[in-house]
Formats: sequence, C-alpha cells, structure tokens
Amino acid sequence: METIEPALYLIPVTLGETPLQQVLPEYNLEIIHGIRHFIVEEIRTARRFLKQVDKAIDIDTLTFYTLNEHTDSKEIESYLLPLANKEPVGIISEAGCPAIADPGADAVCLAQAKGYRIIPLVGPSSILLSLMASGFNGQSFAFNGYLPIEENKRISAIKELEQKVYNCGQTQIFIEAPYRNNNLTASLLKNLRPGTKLCIATDITCQDQSIKTHYVSEWRQIKPELPKVPAIFLIYR
Amino acid sequence: METIEPALYLIPVTLGETPLQQVLPEYNLEIIHGIRHFIVEEIRTARRFLKQVDKAIDIDTLTFYTLNEHTDSKEIESYLLPLANKEPVGIISEAGCPAIADPGADAVCLAQAKGYRIIPLVGPSSILLSLMASGFNGQSFAFNGYLPIEENKRISAIKELEQKVYNCGQTQIFIEAPYRNNNLTASLLKNLRPGTKLCIATDITCQDQSIKTHYVSEWRQIKPELPKVPAIFLIYR
Repeated sequence: METIEPALYLIPVTLGETPLQQVLPEYNLEIIHGIRHFIVEEIRTARRFLKQVDKAIDIDTLTFYTLNEHTDSKEIESYLLPLANKEPVGIISEAGCPAIADPGADAVCLAQAKGYRIIPLVGPSSILLSLMASGFNGQSFAFNGYLPIEENKRISAIKELEQKVYNCGQTQIFIEAPYRNNNLTASLLKNLRPGTKLCIATDITCQDQSIKTHYVSEWRQIKPELPKVPAIFLIYR
Repeated sequence: METIEPALYLIPVTLGETPLQQVLPEYNLEIIHGIRHFIVEEIRTARRFLKQVDKAIDIDTLTFYTLNEHTDSKEIESYLLPLANKEPVGIISEAGCPAIADPGADAVCLAQAKGYRIIPLVGPSSILLSLMASGFNGQSFAFNGYLPIEENKRISAIKELEQKVYNCGQTQIFIEAPYRNNNLTASLLKNLRPGTKLCIATDITCQDQSIKTHYVSEWRQIKPELPKVPAIFLIYR
C-alpha cells in the first residue's frame, strides 16, 4: 500500500477492450494502488477494471460506493467522509473519463464545495480523440450529449447545431446509443446541408477504430452502415 | 525501428514540466519509435520532447516539417507525402493534444480529405481535465478559446457566455494568456452574477496544480491572485 496525497482522484478507464497501457499512463496505476475507497457506477465493472490493473489486488480490503442517477446528495456526502480523515478516494468511470457525461460530476461538485483537493488523471475521451482526428475546429467546439429521440425534435436539434456551425464556426459534437447509430446517421444525411462536413467516429481506441470525415454529399454516396458500437458524431463547415 | 501501421498519428505532449509517464500512456512511446517524419510547430521543442521519450534517439535520422499559422496548404500537402509511400507521419503538439487549439488541425483536415488513416493518441488536455475536476456539467459544454481583449467586447463576451450557462445549462470554458490571468479574473468577478459558479484551474498536471470552484460571490471575498502560469476558466450555474 503506497501513501499518496489525500484527494479525490478522478480515474479514467478504457473505452472497450483496449490494453490498459495503450490508453492510461503508468502513473494512474500507481495512484490506484494507494486508494482503498472507490466511488463507482457499477461495482462489477469497477472490480474487473481493478483486477486488470493488478491481478494480485485484494478486492476485499477495498470499499465501494455506488453512484448513479438515483443516488441522493446526502448519500454522496457520506462517500466523501474518508477525505475528512485524510484518506484518498477514487471515482472510477464506466467508460472513458469520470464526470464527463457520467454521474461522477455530482460527487466532484460536492467535493469542491467541501474544499477537498481534486486530482483528475489522464485517460481516453472519445470526445477529445474524435475531435483531434476529425480535422475540425479545435479552438471552438461544443459537446451536446444525446440528441432528442422524437423525430421532429431531433430534426430541429440537427438544424440548430448546423446553424451554430455556420454562424459561430463552432464544431458540434454529439453521441448516440449504439443501436440507434444508423437511425441517427440517416437523419443527419437527410437533414444536413450537402456542403456540411460530418465526421463519424466508431470504436475509438479499439481494434476496429474508424474516424472518417466527409461532406454530407459524399456520405450520401457512401451510404454508411454503422455497426452497433459506441459512436460519436461531429459536424463542421 | 519498429514497424507500425502507416497512418497520421496525433501525438500529445506534457503540459509543462511533468514526467512523461504521469500523463502519457506507454503505448505512445512505442508508436513514436516507429515514426521518422514529424510535423511540428517548433522543431526545438519537438526535439527536446523526443529526447525525453528516448535519450538514445538519433534525431538526425528524423525529418521535421514546420507547421504554424503561416504555413500554406500546398506545403502542408507535401508534409503528408510519406503517407503515400506507406510511411507513418506524426504530428507533435507544443503542449497538450494536437489539433485542439493548435495549428495541427489543418494537417488533419487535409489528411482526412486524402483518405489517410488518422490515429489520435491519448494525452493530457487542460480543457478536459479541468472540466472533470470542476464539478460542472460534463454532458453539455463548450470550449471558446480566448475571449476578446478589448474591454467592451470582453464584457459582452462574458455576459453572453453566462447567458448560455443559464439558458442552456452548458458549461462554458475559455483560456487566457498567462500575463493577462489577473486581468481576466478581475473582469469575470466584476461582470458575472454573484450566484454564478467559476472554476479557475492553473498549472494542470504540474507540481502546483490548482483547480478550484467557488461562487463568484465567494471569489470576490477570496480575491484570487493568479500566478503567470497557464490557466483555464470555466463557468456554470
């Protein structure tokens, strides 16, 4: 057991089945060895990740606290109690970086209010990696999460985001649930202007990673068929 | 010399004087060993980084291509020629991740148009790390680069970004040149509403890292004095 600075550590994990050393700095693994209290979305996947970090890890000496959209703030407050005793606490994400599009942000918010030190660790983010590889504007960009599911609302959202691309030169990024990838793609190709650029990125950092940018008019010819895998979409002019 | 897949690799570097293994996966160093052609903003800093990666590296066997805001697209096109011969090319950032708030994006854009494979590597991003640690909304956020310098335009920009926080629940992120940190902070504390939250993050991933969130009303009491170091600012409700 190493001694590390008492702080709330934000611990990224791999995006899918990628070897740890491909996407996580060695330092993260050292830090993890110094932590006994983990805030997690799902205990099962967190255990699996920790076993991957260190096969010899003694899971039974660790305490896990479940944080999801149903956890109330009183409970989250109790998860941070080890910090009051100068013991480090870690937040492990389900995929990618904690507190970016996952419930970890609520715990971080409370920790900030309590004045605890917060240390974010480096790891893979599909948002950032796809933006880097898209060729789009990285000086001004927005991540918008999921678009609405209902057809008319979705079309309005698509047109509104495209408007921001043209009016503000801001790259617009959004995600979709894997089983709706083809649905969203069809809607994008139908409703975006032919001269707008669309980047479709799938399976980032994984074996079948694909990050491709084309004009909408070109995508209409290509007729892409997306597999049911994590995908992220970016538009720009 | 290892053989790696011919592709345009996007190679992040440290943010300041941080040990490589703290912020870069081991895999990045393996990839770098397989590349002989590097597109860089400044050759001197790129050489220093490569020497850090491997003291024994033979810099004279490598070719460097300078990419900055003055490089025209014909020239950038010539930088990508090794890819036509199935030789990998790397883009090394000056700080953080290539193509995010740096000129690398132009080369990536051309590579996408030519249909070359593009592989982004994981590394530190002050935008993402500060967002993770701010406790702010990570489901919807925008990075806005630098705010205008001229006083009146700057005040309008600040108020416009605050409006987006309240109207859209979107975290707003922006940066400033180190010597203007205190200037911007003063302007933020004067022009934002007391109930708006402001996160100030300095020296991310470095020895003196500080990432603190307070209400504007609290910051006004704290009267922060920022050192002349890289800083990033985030606002949310």
